[in-house]
Amino acid sequence: MEARALIERKRNGGRIAPAEWRALMQAYAAGEVPDYQMAALAMAIYFVGLDREELVALTDAMLTSGASLDLTHLRAGRVDKHSTGGVGDKVSLVLAPLVAVCGVVVPMMSGRGLGHTGGTLDKLESIPGFRTALPLPQVIQQLEALGCALIGQTAEIAPADKRLYALRDATATVESIPLIAASIMSKKLAEGLTGLVLDVKRGSGAFLPELERGLALAETMIALGADHGCPVVALLTAMDRPLGRACGNAIEVEESINALRGEGPADLMQLTFALGAEMLVLGGATATRDEARRRMEVAISSGKAAERFQRIIEAQGGDPRVVDDPSRLPQAAECEWYVAPRDGVVAQVEPRAIGHGITALGGGRTKVSDVIDPSVGFVVTARPGDIVRAGEPLGTIFARDAAGVMSGRATLARAIVIADDADPPLPLISHRVTEAGATPWEHDS
Amino acid sequence: MEARALIERKRNGGRIAPAEWRALMQAYAAGEVPDYQMAALAMAIYFVGLDREELVALTDAMLTSGASLDLTHLRAGRVDKHSTGGVGDKVSLVLAPLVAVCGVVVPMMSGRGLGHTGGTLDKLESIPGFRTALPLPQVIQQLEALGCALIGQTAEIAPADKRLYALRDATATVESIPLIAASIMSKKLAEGLTGLVLDVKRGSGAFLPELERGLALAETMIALGADHGCPVVALLTAMDRPLGRACGNAIEVEESINALRGEGPADLMQLTFALGAEMLVLGGATATRDEARRRMEVAISSGKAAERFQRIIEAQGGDPRVVDDPSRLPQAAECEWYVAPRDGVVAQVEPRAIGHGITALGGGRTKVSDVIDPSVGFVVTARPGDIVRAGEPLGTIFARDAAGVMSGRATLARAIVIADDADPPLPLISHRVTEAGATPWEHDS
Repeated sequence: MEARALIERKRNGGRIAPAEWRALMQAYAAGEVPDYQMAALAMAIYFVGLDREELVALTDAMLTSGASLDLTHLRAGRVDKHSTGGVGDKVSLVLAPLVAVCGVVVPMMSGRGLGHTGGTLDKLESIPGFRTALPLPQVIQQLEALGCALIGQTAEIAPADKRLYALRDATATVESIPLIAASIMSKKLAEGLTGLVLDVKRGSGAFLPELERGLALAETMIALGADHGCPVVALLTAMDRPLGRACGNAIEVEESINALRGEGPADLMQLTFALGAEMLVLGGATATRDEARRRMEVAISSGKAAERFQRIIEAQGGDPRVVDDPSRLPQAAECEWYVAPRDGVVAQVEPRAIGHGITALGGGRTKVSDVIDPSVGFVVTARPGDIVRAGEPLGTIFARDAAGVMSGRATLARAIVIADDADPPLPLISHRVTEAGATPWEHDS
Repeated sequence: MEARALIERKRNGGRIAPAEWRALMQAYAAGEVPDYQMAALAMAIYFVGLDREELVALTDAMLTSGASLDLTHLRAGRVDKHSTGGVGDKVSLVLAPLVAVCGVVVPMMSGRGLGHTGGTLDKLESIPGFRTALPLPQVIQQLEALGCALIGQTAEIAPADKRLYALRDATATVESIPLIAASIMSKKLAEGLTGLVLDVKRGSGAFLPELERGLALAETMIALGADHGCPVVALLTAMDRPLGRACGNAIEVEESINALRGEGPADLMQLTFALGAEMLVLGGATATRDEARRRMEVAISSGKAAERFQRIIEAQGGDPRVVDDPSRLPQAAECEWYVAPRDGVVAQVEPRAIGHGITALGGGRTKVSDVIDPSVGFVVTARPGDIVRAGEPLGTIFARDAAGVMSGRATLARAIVIADDADPPLPLISHRVTEAGATPWEHDS
């Protein structure tokens, strides 16, 4: 394996052949290609890109570096949702049981929070006893029984991707669309999916803030899915403010439970239904998105969605009583209002500031090895465009101690901008992207 | 040291401040910044470049990561020559003693061969007993006594550069003009120079084949030298064919000894005089290049230049008798003619093919740890433009055994292209570059 020659060729704008990608990623997963060569290659890819055949080959090479779920014996479609990450984004917790109840199998593999964004695994693990690391046979069994498993990337799944992802994080090579696409897709294909719905965030709190970059990622993922027989549909959604009200770990689980009962914040419900409708149609459970939506509404109003979440929690070792009694979730010692410092209109609720504020409270990570406190965070009730009066509550700070409350106050003072007037926020959903191209989103009723 | 943030900034086209370069390279030399981060940064620099202030700061950071020679007590100017490397380029061996005899101190720090290019240290070490690793106090003493020392980069000199250079070689980030310039200059400044002459090769066997890239390197080095009070003059010279006739280690030493007696091939003598004249003027030994040239001719015809080389060899532990009796150098077991396979004109003598052919014979390296056989190589008497007849000798193969002769024959068959007609070769010297800019070279008499 002459990695140096491949780096040089890519650097010069050339292409790496499928067999070369396979050999390279196998050698990398085996520790035979050093991190410094892979780091140089990743930076060259950042600048030069990958063509479609290379992207497919890299994805396959990472996929076949590890194990895959074989779910072909399940009659139902298998569909997952992937979000590019944000603040307050607890959609996965609501969506997975909801879609499973409606007849599509959801083998959902999620990640942990890092930087300003939260992670589904961290949220789930705030449920006492909940395990996200399951042996693959148990995952399959649970998918058969409950139609849903909520797990993390195991050492068996795409190990080359796992090693490369950690390296990219340390070498400022995360923001490369082909590398992002290959990383996501290699893991998703290992789940044995028949379809994937992508939630591409845009706006100041997103990983790729610009619409064009988000659309480019969506189009790359759709092409990559098409080449692997896994159709992908993407929605471009707003991350110029947090999604929903709760931003933290345990408090987001509580908001998710409310949403599974139909009592979540409007934006969380709307986005969950929109993504869920795509999943149900992709999974073949319903013919249209309208029908999908009606089925989801019934799943919620009948109590079946919340009940399914309860059974999933139980199957994964968690305390199922949290669904009926959220006070069993970790509770912060301190809980205080944050009030408006002046009259005006809410011009901004800045997700990055809130995300970093959660980390400052102990609820997020600056490095992978950090241990987090699941109880802390913010519930922000103020929304961009709201007219507020000085002294009116805009949110609640959940902290470990008085120092945390101080820090939380400073966070919300930075994050919530009150001005004399405000630009309109981004539409919650702006575009829907399929193989046929991107179309502007038509407003939900 | 948040290396990740610096990589990201450079990747995005931003600049790294002088204090940040200093901290980064200190941490890197101390092993606190991992190679994978430096590899990603080097690739980002390959694409984005460095501005003049960054280049100065990186050079200083690498320079001050180690020790420097303090030679201010010497009254004479201290001038070194650096070549970007080629095949058959033994100029350093001739130039250093010659210029020292003429009154300029030459603290010459050279490298080893790698890939298709030869290295001065390897050539010198073909002299039995010759040591290129000297303690710095001995280097200073020898410069005082003989005006010249021929050494390698020690662990004390610019250790950050040493580590970075090895990393760049493994990560295809060598061909970056700012990184090349900073690497050369950090080592040269550590020699305590008052001037530097640069031999920038161009043509198919050069490291940067295109004239524009060679000129850009020359201009970058000149600016960098000016910012450090070390004036630089560069000549752009031909490497579309080997320099001189001998290509190998011991046989190049023999050709160098001949040249020190005035009996070298015309191109070797011409280039040595041109570079030497620049060194003598930069070092303040003569007012003009014409005067410099006359002084060098006297140094050769008087026998003083060859004698000075002999004394340097002796001082560095080598067998000084090789100067009078080159048969004391390692001799190849096999020595055979290579003859023209057809009538025609020599259209090409391809340096890369010859360089790789030396490696195939055991006289070069494919990796740093390879041990080389100093006796093998080629003497190529055919020059581009020569009219030849089938069966006429074009060169000699020096090999360890019959298999080596076979390999050498295949090398020369590839390297020496005989055709019906030929384009003219590059001029030996095409441009002279100073702070005033680049001017076409006027032919020597």
